[in-house]
Amino acid sequence: MRLRHKPWAAEKLANYPQYVIADANQYKGKWNEEIFSNNNEIHIEIGTGKGRFITEMAKAHPDINFIGIEAYTSVIVTALDRLIEAELPNVKLLNLNAEKLEEVFAPGEVARIYLNFSDPWPKNRHEKRRLTYKKFLQIYERILKSEGDIHFKTDNQKLFEYSLVSFSQFGLVLNDVNLDLDNSDFKGNVMTEYQEKFSAKGNRIYRCEVSFPVNGE
Amino acid sequence: MRLRHKPWAAEKLANYPQYVIADANQYKGKWNEEIFSNNNEIHIEIGTGKGRFITEMAKAHPDINFIGIEAYTSVIVTALDRLIEAELPNVKLLNLNAEKLEEVFAPGEVARIYLNFSDPWPKNRHEKRRLTYKKFLQIYERILKSEGDIHFKTDNQKLFEYSLVSFSQFGLVLNDVNLDLDNSDFKGNVMTEYQEKFSAKGNRIYRCEVSFPVNGE
Repeated sequence: MRLRHKPWAAEKLANYPQYVIADANQYKGKWNEEIFSNNNEIHIEIGTGKGRFITEMAKAHPDINFIGIEAYTSVIVTALDRLIEAELPNVKLLNLNAEKLEEVFAPGEVARIYLNFSDPWPKNRHEKRRLTYKKFLQIYERILKSEGDIHFKTDNQKLFEYSLVSFSQFGLVLNDVNLDLDNSDFKGNVMTEYQEKFSAKGNRIYRCEVSFPVNGE
Repeated sequence: MRLRHKPWAAEKLANYPQYVIADANQYKGKWNEEIFSNNNEIHIEIGTGKGRFITEMAKAHPDINFIGIEAYTSVIVTALDRLIEAELPNVKLLNLNAEKLEEVFAPGEVARIYLNFSDPWPKNRHEKRRLTYKKFLQIYERILKSEGDIHFKTDNQKLFEYSLVSFSQFGLVLNDVNLDLDNSDFKGNVMTEYQEKFSAKGNRIYRCEVSFPVNGE
């Protein structure tokens, strides 16, 4: 998406510590106790953008703790506006690069990872930046609990093809594949801003669910 | 495809033993020596239909031995007509049900399996008939050599979604995925009769390559 420089964004994020968690490293292994004060599962969205998906999910699933993670300050500030309006206790935001997830989450602390319309980085030389590149899968494996999974959707055909192969070659198991989400009977299709725009144009949305093999299998 | 009863088909097949191998069980483990008289790789197509794919492949790859396998006598007889015309030494036909592959091929005797536009059997209760159902994957695993692979293409979205999950859950590894074959830069897109008809209508062709994990990985 197009990024606009918003010099005031960082200050605004700092003004809402109840929604945007700063210095998150100190909560590593303690998100349930110190942030959410419950034992519910933690689901994170990596690249949460303007926050529509994570906010709608948090409304629909009050028994799940959601954390929206977004590297761009100028984008996550819009997600913050949504949270301020929605006043939900079960969703937080993190202004963080996905490469640093392990600094913030302890092994097994996360139950599910959502990747929605991640940047496709179409050039071969940018493969390592794709959120489904093996370097990131290694990180996800470490922070996910053993029965945890990844739910991935995109409108980018090449990214989806690449990701299916990347998942498979890393040893992940496909539990579900949907090659035309909007024309299927899939329930729970919570839209992102991006998705709504692209679905309206008739573009296909691809989706899959993958998990790491459980030890001993 | 629509099947027409052709009472004369079985007799015609029997009249061309140089192309249609009868009593194939006797060649189990001996295809290279006794049928092809060379040590080239053996590639089989399961559900070879009217034989266009296997014939074109045999022309394009004279250093590979091809075997087209088709259960329906009334269909394979058309493939035979093609072979009679093409006069190729490196392609044979087998009038056989895929469930009986192990009666005909020894472990590791086959280097590649092609599945092209297999019957989707869309009803859930017919899952076991799909050529990518786990029962068939077990058979493929036994007859394929360890570095062997499966090349699968179909225009049926649901069958492709099902097959990706079935492959993955069986432990197969995806080496390549193409979600719109005709609009890609994929080389070697040898058409089947069926494919030409469907591509002309603008339907998408899905394709993937999968392999069984090599021991020790």
